[in-house]
Amino acid sequence: MSDPSLPEPQPLQALIDALRRLPGVGVRSARRMAYHLLQHDASGALHLSEALRHAVGDLKHCRRCNSFTEDEVCGTCLSPRRDPAQLCIVETPADQNMLEASHGYHGLYYVLMGRLAPLDGVGPQELGFQNLLDRACDGVVQEVILATNFTAEGETTAHYLAELLRSRGLRVSRLARGVPAGSELEYVDAGTLAWALMERRDSHQD
Amino acid sequence: MSDPSLPEPQPLQALIDALRRLPGVGVRSARRMAYHLLQHDASGALHLSEALRHAVGDLKHCRRCNSFTEDEVCGTCLSPRRDPAQLCIVETPADQNMLEASHGYHGLYYVLMGRLAPLDGVGPQELGFQNLLDRACDGVVQEVILATNFTAEGETTAHYLAELLRSRGLRVSRLARGVPAGSELEYVDAGTLAWALMERRDSHQD
Repeated sequence: MSDPSLPEPQPLQALIDALRRLPGVGVRSARRMAYHLLQHDASGALHLSEALRHAVGDLKHCRRCNSFTEDEVCGTCLSPRRDPAQLCIVETPADQNMLEASHGYHGLYYVLMGRLAPLDGVGPQELGFQNLLDRACDGVVQEVILATNFTAEGETTAHYLAELLRSRGLRVSRLARGVPAGSELEYVDAGTLAWALMERRDSHQD
Repeated sequence: MSDPSLPEPQPLQALIDALRRLPGVGVRSARRMAYHLLQHDASGALHLSEALRHAVGDLKHCRRCNSFTEDEVCGTCLSPRRDPAQLCIVETPADQNMLEASHGYHGLYYVLMGRLAPLDGVGPQELGFQNLLDRACDGVVQEVILATNFTAEGETTAHYLAELLRSRGLRVSRLARGVPAGSELEYVDAGTLAWALMERRDSHQD
């Protein structure tokens, strides 16, 4: 995009290049962000600069659940109010947050920080499955709940983990598939309806 | 979004909050960016941190054209190969880049770094119109080309500037409105066609 006849000042070019490394940010967005910060929010820019430095410097992975934490073991893993017999496997801390917001789970978590994606070179080794196995086979965990996304890659990851963990004698479950709460059947996609039919429950179970 | 039962570590929360100050970035994007940087691109994060600090520290506005530069006066304004009798007014440095890429202009620029937007509290004073007037009335500039966007706010800005500059005895022109190069009439919107009809040219002028 840059034209040799109109060299942008180097610090501006460097900032635009650095912003482009953010996921989902192309050259136009990066440019708009750079102009905005320089023209209207220099304090926001310095704030972001500091936040980046601190986050990279201070955060590490929890030794037990692999999520981000400032300490060796995160607060969730240390909480005495959690059921250590249940371990829920999610792809990202955002997924963990959503499950917490449902108030339906009181066990512990393991955060993969990704999903199996062979085409992108992300295999069991890159995701540190040995670490997960060590965690799940601590003798206290009895049930592992697979809560990876219901995308192709998330499902592949769940299948792979299910086999791996079942072979270790653990009870393995998966989040239920079905019609989303509050939705009208007319607007639910066919694949979801097919799943909901296959996994239908007897009414008296409720 | 944050749940008191699952406090995210402070440096992560601070990073997400700082990323949300970028234009067009909501809480989900900010979260995704933060996870990505921390998990996969710590060097990119530090790189961005440095770039932000340098850009805010080293860049200022060119005393002549108001664009970003490391020096008092930018390279474009100092270039002896530019025609100082023409001054093109644009909203942002990105617009200036696009005009340069057209290779159709060889005069100088003035970058407003914004547009008149009364509803957002951006008036002639906020945009520094006095500075622009001083620049345009240097005795060398003979024609001012208004190249603000063809949006409502860009048009308002152009109208306002046209009156202001004409009253100073300057020749003022506006980029031509019409059918975009390479387009089929069937797919051109009605407003553009109406403009193209109104501003039609005699064929022998070509």
